[in-house]
Amino acid sequence: MATAAARAAIGDSEFDRDTAVVPRDGEPGTYDIDLSPGWTIIAAVNGGYLLAAVGRALRDALPHPDPLTITAHYLTASQPGPAVIRTQTVRTGRTMSSGQASLFQTDEQGREVERIRVIAGYGDLDALPDDVRTSATPPPMPAYEDSAASDDAPGGSPVPGATSFLDRIDLRLDPATAGWAIGMPSGAGDIRGWLGLADGRDHDALSLLLAVDALPPTAFDLGLKGWTPTLELTVHLRARPAPGRLLVSLTTRNLAGGLLEEDAQVWDGAGRLVAQARQLARAPRG
Amino acid sequence: MATAAARAAIGDSEFDRDTAVVPRDGEPGTYDIDLSPGWTIIAAVNGGYLLAAVGRALRDALPHPDPLTITAHYLTASQPGPAVIRTQTVRTGRTMSSGQASLFQTDEQGREVERIRVIAGYGDLDALPDDVRTSATPPPMPAYEDSAASDDAPGGSPVPGATSFLDRIDLRLDPATAGWAIGMPSGAGDIRGWLGLADGRDHDALSLLLAVDALPPTAFDLGLKGWTPTLELTVHLRARPAPGRLLVSLTTRNLAGGLLEEDAQVWDGAGRLVAQARQLARAPRG
Repeated sequence: MATAAARAAIGDSEFDRDTAVVPRDGEPGTYDIDLSPGWTIIAAVNGGYLLAAVGRALRDALPHPDPLTITAHYLTASQPGPAVIRTQTVRTGRTMSSGQASLFQTDEQGREVERIRVIAGYGDLDALPDDVRTSATPPPMPAYEDSAASDDAPGGSPVPGATSFLDRIDLRLDPATAGWAIGMPSGAGDIRGWLGLADGRDHDALSLLLAVDALPPTAFDLGLKGWTPTLELTVHLRARPAPGRLLVSLTTRNLAGGLLEEDAQVWDGAGRLVAQARQLARAPRG
Repeated sequence: MATAAARAAIGDSEFDRDTAVVPRDGEPGTYDIDLSPGWTIIAAVNGGYLLAAVGRALRDALPHPDPLTITAHYLTASQPGPAVIRTQTVRTGRTMSSGQASLFQTDEQGREVERIRVIAGYGDLDALPDDVRTSATPPPMPAYEDSAASDDAPGGSPVPGATSFLDRIDLRLDPATAGWAIGMPSGAGDIRGWLGLADGRDHDALSLLLAVDALPPTAFDLGLKGWTPTLELTVHLRARPAPGRLLVSLTTRNLAGGLLEEDAQVWDGAGRLVAQARQLARAPRG
């Protein structure tokens, strides 16, 4: 997916339009959203997109703008279409506030079904002191131009069955972690890539919530095929990202008992570790 | 702290007595607990002890016994003494159930103040399939007998100001990560140790919640002194621990913006990675 010639601006992009939440009149803390079919993988709504949508509602509800730590439990599978997000302010402090939110959809019987439940601590990334003592280093990664685009893989998309989600992102994988697309997974449990948004919008705090769950699952690099449903995802935002693409590095070191962790480190173009995340997911049976 | 000659049994130990929760008559899902002064560091109640107490209430409230993933947000400082835990069953499934809980204490004005809020997914560690594909390896660690006990350090306890908490645990640190106790921190941000309970009780799923937050903070190994208050802690339990001590390894790789992550890996005596955890904490100013 080539980057659009005219770059979309933060606030006026696909991602912004599709995560827009509308406060309900007379119901403080309640927001309506239409979950876009544009962020689905096969029929499932991407978990990072869902988290960004809920994160946006919490940003509106809380006095601080940025999720410093946010945890989502994925309870049932979301569908594209209308949803309602109900937020609760748990505690507000000077530098940090805590909130909770759930996203619901209405089933065929007219009952509200909870899709995801989120708890978060918000702060202001710009107000943090500017000390940085990072001993973590970005993984080796070829330049964007030398990385594998989704349409480089034989048979097209590197994500089997992936549909509209890949049209929304600008993803190039490290060829060393893309062997599974040609039947040669490394077995290490690593996936690395450069990640932009397809319309050229730069990243911000909310799109980091998307970024940590936007790459193909590490299970593919372990030689497993099939679905890796997220049970729980926790993201720590550590700095506001510089303009440009992100380097996203996923690793799995412990597949056991039918479950695996997927650790994400996200680096911006300035070499700053901007997000750390971990999810617990069900391993594919393949 | 020497291990007691007579080993306490799971179910009949300090840890079990001090995490005991009493269901309230007529209020399903509500539990009373008396937070013990035995698990405090200076005046603060240890965060892992609190999480274990809330985890025990959720174990009672939910149909599955083990927290596969559990996240706590620490909102206000807990005090030893009475507390109430209110749980909510979010969703129950065949292999997993989701719940939420908050622990409250009553302030001097008689108001309930929320101390921590927890969201968790419970399952049954014994019912998980027995596949294990762990590429993580335990860190190098000297034998228990060659590790540093708290009373080896000049001036006594290696934790400045630590009080009763250290009497409850049987902790021996890797000398390579204990240099801060004699003014020579390594700067790496690592703390490693063997962890038992002082009365010889073996570990179980609930005491793993204690184990991930029981060592001195990695900030000490970074040369920082002072308090490292936990904002959020997420624990993934991946296997039921074998009898005997645990190897707990903490690492911090990103101190920035006045915050740091503390990653915990917990290995049992059989060499199994039984827990992975991460917390976001405020860095000490020292």
